[in-house]
Amino acid sequence: MNRRMVFYLLGKILVLEAALMCLPLICSAIYGEESGVFAFGVTIALALFLGFILVHVNNPKDKTIFAKEGFVIVALAWVVMSLVGALPFTISGEIPFYINAVFETVSGFTTTGASILTDVEALSHGMLFWRSFTHWVGGMGILVLVMAIVPTDSGRSMHIARAEMPGPIIGKLVPKLKSTAKILYLIYICLTALQVVLLLAGGMKFFDSLLHSFGTAGTGGFGIKGDSVASYTPYQQWVIAIFMLIFGVNFNIYYLILVKKIRTAFKSEEFWVYIGIVAFATGLITVNVYNTFDSLSETVRHTFFQVSSVMTTTGYSTLNFNEWPYFSKGILLILMFIGACAGSTAGGLKVSRAVLLFKRVSSNLKHALHPRSTEVVRLEGKKVDDETLTGVMVYFSLYFLFFTAVFFCLLFEPFDLETNISAAASCFNNIGPAFGSAWANYNDYSPFSKIVLSVAMLAGRLEIYPMILLFSPTSWIKRRKIKK
Amino acid sequence: MNRRMVFYLLGKILVLEAALMCLPLICSAIYGEESGVFAFGVTIALALFLGFILVHVNNPKDKTIFAKEGFVIVALAWVVMSLVGALPFTISGEIPFYINAVFETVSGFTTTGASILTDVEALSHGMLFWRSFTHWVGGMGILVLVMAIVPTDSGRSMHIARAEMPGPIIGKLVPKLKSTAKILYLIYICLTALQVVLLLAGGMKFFDSLLHSFGTAGTGGFGIKGDSVASYTPYQQWVIAIFMLIFGVNFNIYYLILVKKIRTAFKSEEFWVYIGIVAFATGLITVNVYNTFDSLSETVRHTFFQVSSVMTTTGYSTLNFNEWPYFSKGILLILMFIGACAGSTAGGLKVSRAVLLFKRVSSNLKHALHPRSTEVVRLEGKKVDDETLTGVMVYFSLYFLFFTAVFFCLLFEPFDLETNISAAASCFNNIGPAFGSAWANYNDYSPFSKIVLSVAMLAGRLEIYPMILLFSPTSWIKRRKIKK
Repeated sequence: MNRRMVFYLLGKILVLEAALMCLPLICSAIYGEESGVFAFGVTIALALFLGFILVHVNNPKDKTIFAKEGFVIVALAWVVMSLVGALPFTISGEIPFYINAVFETVSGFTTTGASILTDVEALSHGMLFWRSFTHWVGGMGILVLVMAIVPTDSGRSMHIARAEMPGPIIGKLVPKLKSTAKILYLIYICLTALQVVLLLAGGMKFFDSLLHSFGTAGTGGFGIKGDSVASYTPYQQWVIAIFMLIFGVNFNIYYLILVKKIRTAFKSEEFWVYIGIVAFATGLITVNVYNTFDSLSETVRHTFFQVSSVMTTTGYSTLNFNEWPYFSKGILLILMFIGACAGSTAGGLKVSRAVLLFKRVSSNLKHALHPRSTEVVRLEGKKVDDETLTGVMVYFSLYFLFFTAVFFCLLFEPFDLETNISAAASCFNNIGPAFGSAWANYNDYSPFSKIVLSVAMLAGRLEIYPMILLFSPTSWIKRRKIKK
Repeated sequence: MNRRMVFYLLGKILVLEAALMCLPLICSAIYGEESGVFAFGVTIALALFLGFILVHVNNPKDKTIFAKEGFVIVALAWVVMSLVGALPFTISGEIPFYINAVFETVSGFTTTGASILTDVEALSHGMLFWRSFTHWVGGMGILVLVMAIVPTDSGRSMHIARAEMPGPIIGKLVPKLKSTAKILYLIYICLTALQVVLLLAGGMKFFDSLLHSFGTAGTGGFGIKGDSVASYTPYQQWVIAIFMLIFGVNFNIYYLILVKKIRTAFKSEEFWVYIGIVAFATGLITVNVYNTFDSLSETVRHTFFQVSSVMTTTGYSTLNFNEWPYFSKGILLILMFIGACAGSTAGGLKVSRAVLLFKRVSSNLKHALHPRSTEVVRLEGKKVDDETLTGVMVYFSLYFLFFTAVFFCLLFEPFDLETNISAAASCFNNIGPAFGSAWANYNDYSPFSKIVLSVAMLAGRLEIYPMILLFSPTSWIKRRKIKK
């Protein structure tokens, strides 16, 4: 383990976080919120101080990053960012209990959107801004941002990208990873800006438009009203619903559109399966809840919104879908596990993994029928190699083992099985709201469970491996020892 | 597809079922139950008639059985056995609705123990006998029985054995499969007889002892009282609890003990993990429910009984554990999915599969840390080949896809998510009781759901593949066509 390099990069990330925190500081200043200015100021100073120390003490001669360092850097970066990012909430006294603040910040960075707040509208503008901004930063990935703006040795950053970017296959858009990161952030910024403009055009206030666009872009879901986005106009709800769907699409497709390979872009198998599932689920739930609304258009709007929100693991809602019939809740529970497309900002298992699993299982069934046939699995027209397929199945197994472990830890709570299963699923898949007692917020969970759920959110966002390796003692053995 | 061979064997199985049904006929006769004698008599005549026709019309020259035929024979045999086995219930009028009777019979043969009966004590002795006897027959497998008693070409029966025997690896005890089948049934009969003797020694009536031993041996769980085994003495409950555990052990171990390789027998990794999980779960639940009982011994008895019952997928109960705290119910829900050992009469994923999954995932994590290390997974001290490991992961994926499909079909019911999740888990894993509305019986489910759950029970017992291949059109293409 190249510890120096790990702590060096960690220092850089802290400095970056301090820089990012200037935005909510400015927001607090604009709205004249003194305690907010103070809280962000102190945190920025602390992050800068720690960051500079880490960078200068550890300046490493050996800058190599192997897979192990990649995983550990990413995991550690996310944990430290969350611990530091939680400070303003506690310093300002708006979330006095630090574990709650950490839960909220982890939920923000991992784009989960699960909250412990019982009254979100009591928060100051600066804190609301920071809360939603963490979604935006976490959505595309903090280390992808580092790669996009900090000069690093591109060839060796691949291990970091692999650890932070979701999905079974890491595709580089262009040969240089640094350029890929830049293109991704460019698309991300443009789409976010477009949503802000469309929301403004629909009469939403600038502050609200910006924060909801942050939450949508990161597929996060932190709202700024007690009833999420229920009080906004149908037009505004449609904009958010469609943009949630847009941010759940693999960003490669936008790149392909950008370079005018539109035909190739819309040949994507994952994209069509994703759209198909959303349409199918919307159809089923529409039939199920039709009688509770006045018109078909209203039914479709609400149904499509919740389906899009859950499938993309965002978590906004236009109504209390915890009160929907069990049929609809069951469909949503299944969607929670699937998630959106790989290479998007969404969580969950990812559509392409589900497709690969399904194809792998089908090919196995065919093989059982005709033992002499060869098993070839194709995705997007290309043959998928065995390593990837095995990787998907190993991930699926790990996913359920981890899910079971989280569910087991929650059993110490007095809640029913529906609440605990959906809370574990919701946090692990980075969605946000859960059914039953955890519908509105997670405040009733014990500090122990909040820590467990925070770890689950991080594991879900980083696709498990980095979190487990971070806590594995053998990860931390010095490199020389291993070389013996 | 060698259709003639398939129907030929099906005919033999019908004749065998007719022979097996003579026992409940005798039972009905002893208790002077005329309608029972009539119902069994008619069914036996019908089964013999159909059986002889199938055998004589199809007597095949080509007796080869490939993998495909193996799967289809097993699946078809189980479906037809259940359809015919359900007739006495309907003919006698004791379960007038045929779909209910089929559900009950499928539940019997698959050793699930899920019932649609609202008042089991109203059933006649003959019907109770047949109901429990199906557990005993289904536990070890009907085709294993065929192999043990009917002269067949042993080399080619392997495909049948693979389709009917549970677990990731099929181990032949002795080189000849026919002898293996005989040894397995011998052990099975001896253990069942031992349990009958021990229950009789505890003062249980012969009829009750026999039927409970059938239900325990097959890890089925059909009781003959409304409160399952709650009204029996602590000694009798201990005997049943311990024998459930015994029948959840891989029968290879008993064979090893039989040939005095006791040291090798108790080196089994799966066995110790199995015992460990039971002990751990019993400990946790004991702590959780301790305050509801008078003494520690009473707590341990009840806790151990339910853990043993759920883990071995039997389904007997000494109390209403649906009313236990959510912590205990959550633990039991996890146990439902694990199941007992491969090569036992129990259902579920099987301990050895869970162990292999866990090891495969761990080795993958190690590999992520040290990419140059070789990934070797060992079970019982032996290296497990890649094909088996991949097979386990494919099975796990298929298992959850199938579980999700069953859960989806149940969503059309008005029950809550806890009921539907546990009902799907309980039937698919061949346990029996489910939480919530399906605790006492499945009578409130619609005929559609009962059919879905019947298919789930069969798929669970036969480990999915045969059931899917049975309904796959390409399975039924004539052999010549494929050879072209």
